[in-house]
Amino acid sequence: MKVLVIGGDGYCGWATALHLSSRGYDVGILDNLIRRHWDAQLGVETLTPISPIHQRIERWNNLSGKAVDLYVGDITDYAFLSKTLREFEPEAIVHFGEQRSAPFSMIDREHAVMTQVNNVVGTLNILYAMKEDFPDCHLVKLGTMGEYGTPNIDIEEGYITIEHNGRKDTLPYPKQPGSFYHLSKVHDSHNIHFACKIWGLRATDLNQGVVYGVLTEETGIDELLINRLDYDGVFGTALNRFCIQAAIGHPLTVYGKGGQTRGFLDIRDTVRCIELAITNPADAGQFRVFNQFTELFSVYDLALKVKNAAIAMGLDVEINHLENPRVELEQHYFNAKNTKLLDLGLQPHYLSDSLLDSLLNFAIKYKGRVDEKHILPKVSWRRS
Amino acid sequence: MKVLVIGGDGYCGWATALHLSSRGYDVGILDNLIRRHWDAQLGVETLTPISPIHQRIERWNNLSGKAVDLYVGDITDYAFLSKTLREFEPEAIVHFGEQRSAPFSMIDREHAVMTQVNNVVGTLNILYAMKEDFPDCHLVKLGTMGEYGTPNIDIEEGYITIEHNGRKDTLPYPKQPGSFYHLSKVHDSHNIHFACKIWGLRATDLNQGVVYGVLTEETGIDELLINRLDYDGVFGTALNRFCIQAAIGHPLTVYGKGGQTRGFLDIRDTVRCIELAITNPADAGQFRVFNQFTELFSVYDLALKVKNAAIAMGLDVEINHLENPRVELEQHYFNAKNTKLLDLGLQPHYLSDSLLDSLLNFAIKYKGRVDEKHILPKVSWRRS
Repeated sequence: MKVLVIGGDGYCGWATALHLSSRGYDVGILDNLIRRHWDAQLGVETLTPISPIHQRIERWNNLSGKAVDLYVGDITDYAFLSKTLREFEPEAIVHFGEQRSAPFSMIDREHAVMTQVNNVVGTLNILYAMKEDFPDCHLVKLGTMGEYGTPNIDIEEGYITIEHNGRKDTLPYPKQPGSFYHLSKVHDSHNIHFACKIWGLRATDLNQGVVYGVLTEETGIDELLINRLDYDGVFGTALNRFCIQAAIGHPLTVYGKGGQTRGFLDIRDTVRCIELAITNPADAGQFRVFNQFTELFSVYDLALKVKNAAIAMGLDVEINHLENPRVELEQHYFNAKNTKLLDLGLQPHYLSDSLLDSLLNFAIKYKGRVDEKHILPKVSWRRS
Repeated sequence: MKVLVIGGDGYCGWATALHLSSRGYDVGILDNLIRRHWDAQLGVETLTPISPIHQRIERWNNLSGKAVDLYVGDITDYAFLSKTLREFEPEAIVHFGEQRSAPFSMIDREHAVMTQVNNVVGTLNILYAMKEDFPDCHLVKLGTMGEYGTPNIDIEEGYITIEHNGRKDTLPYPKQPGSFYHLSKVHDSHNIHFACKIWGLRATDLNQGVVYGVLTEETGIDELLINRLDYDGVFGTALNRFCIQAAIGHPLTVYGKGGQTRGFLDIRDTVRCIELAITNPADAGQFRVFNQFTELFSVYDLALKVKNAAIAMGLDVEINHLENPRVELEQHYFNAKNTKLLDLGLQPHYLSDSLLDSLLNFAIKYKGRVDEKHILPKVSWRRS
């Protein structure tokens, strides 16, 4: 089965591409490599020294005997996208190819506009290219749990049945996203839903939680296959960032009270979830939504877990409650459903002491690469 | 009070600008005149011979003694927008400046992408310009009743209180828009809501129904002030189109069964609704949604009303059920609330025989300008 991984040079994309390749899928990677460029522009680097994409793929080929096709280009360029699809002929498209940082989208107007145009147009182009040439192809699109915000009722998977004034309907779950980035994913969801309805396309929207960890079975086997691990205030996400902060003796940066509760999952589950979605495709015309996380944690609880694991390793760790640069509730109800991927057979890697130890040791190994001045958040959601 | 009408050269925008000017507001019009250009590109013309914007404004000035400032440029050009706002210093911005045709957005990929980028970026730019320089300005944004689609439960005004698993919250009403154009308005709504939340901006989203009629108190006083009236398959909307079809003896074009029910309003109520929104601004941080229509009709019922009025005038009229070019339900539950503008004092002009007579006579007066080959819909929602 031919699977095109758009954004296959990124954190989740690279791990997914290798996992699928290892599992026997015929994998292509499409990526414009812009994330490496953004890192350069912001002056940040991943904790881990990642190799150029051509070398990564060559190394994988040498070690595994599996070929991965590479298409370097931009999906907002429709001619390129269309030509690539005709050449590769995908049966499934996994779409990670978006600007994925909330703080990046909140830097200023230019970054907000760029994030929304880039993400919305890229996804529209994929939908049109599928409609034109590959109407049976299955789109597996990365959404985010952040599309839902923090409603005071249970979060269902994409849809909710509402009884109102004696009548009943099942409707798209209301969205309250918390950044221009998260908004772009909400826009995508609405666009994809519509394309499935009018053109009979099949799509799965994976509303993913915050991903942590770095090693997967495939990326761990060789230094040239190493995955990126972000710790900076723009691209770094909660648990990974905490582990790196602990490793270098920097206080763990909890924004505000830390009662913000979110869905989390191990990157080893990300790659399995994608595979489960691919092997169980949506029906023609179906826009399916899975909530892709395995556990709920508050940010403060996570910081505490990292602190305890670090102390057990002899590290000296403090937790700092920074003034929250975001506009968000810091204490709230949060209960999200995540049964659909479990029903398909997902066996979660729950957050464990051994994972924390492994991640901390990994961070210690590369701690010489950390540039401390990029750790604190500099982007504010507020009007100055 | 200074009010900037973005899109003030269009059908609703022009009528609104003159109405507000006549009522004593200090009005500016910002428009890129692109709609006239699109007409030229499609080879269509409004039924009515509309004058160039500079002439229209000069004529209004001569007749009323009121000046209207004109800013010709594009709100997707942030430098132009920001400069214009600093010069005009609006206390309210009425935003009609979007691509507003569903069929236009469905022509092909280019039109879909252009519609979404144009509308979303224009609105984002307004939000950023307000945040930067005019955080207390009130944004009155034109949404559409089409954002809701046709759910099987009552449509509330923007928000719905949901009880679910023993808990309760009031959340944005779920959206099921029916074209890439309608989707662009849903994207806008989410973006504006977020900007109000994080920056404390004040905004009113007017989810407007289908507007009919052409004469308002101001546009009717002189031929040079005449408003546009679209009858073509791309920009023409239900009732106006039917009247023009009846005037030239063309069968009334009902798409499919005609059971599609929508909210409608007279253009004389559009201008009043805008004024009501302006004089009763949203609070700081509030994203308010009003459903702006006065009556619900099915498309077939409207065709029948036009047919009967036309027959009474001695015209020979048939109703043709065309194959529906859109993907939409043709029989469905539809019950939308519209009490908020009534509560503010709106006194509706309900659809009457005299309005139909007046509109039919108006259409007869200009029927020599109709190009019959542009009447039938040519844009299909479906995959060919």
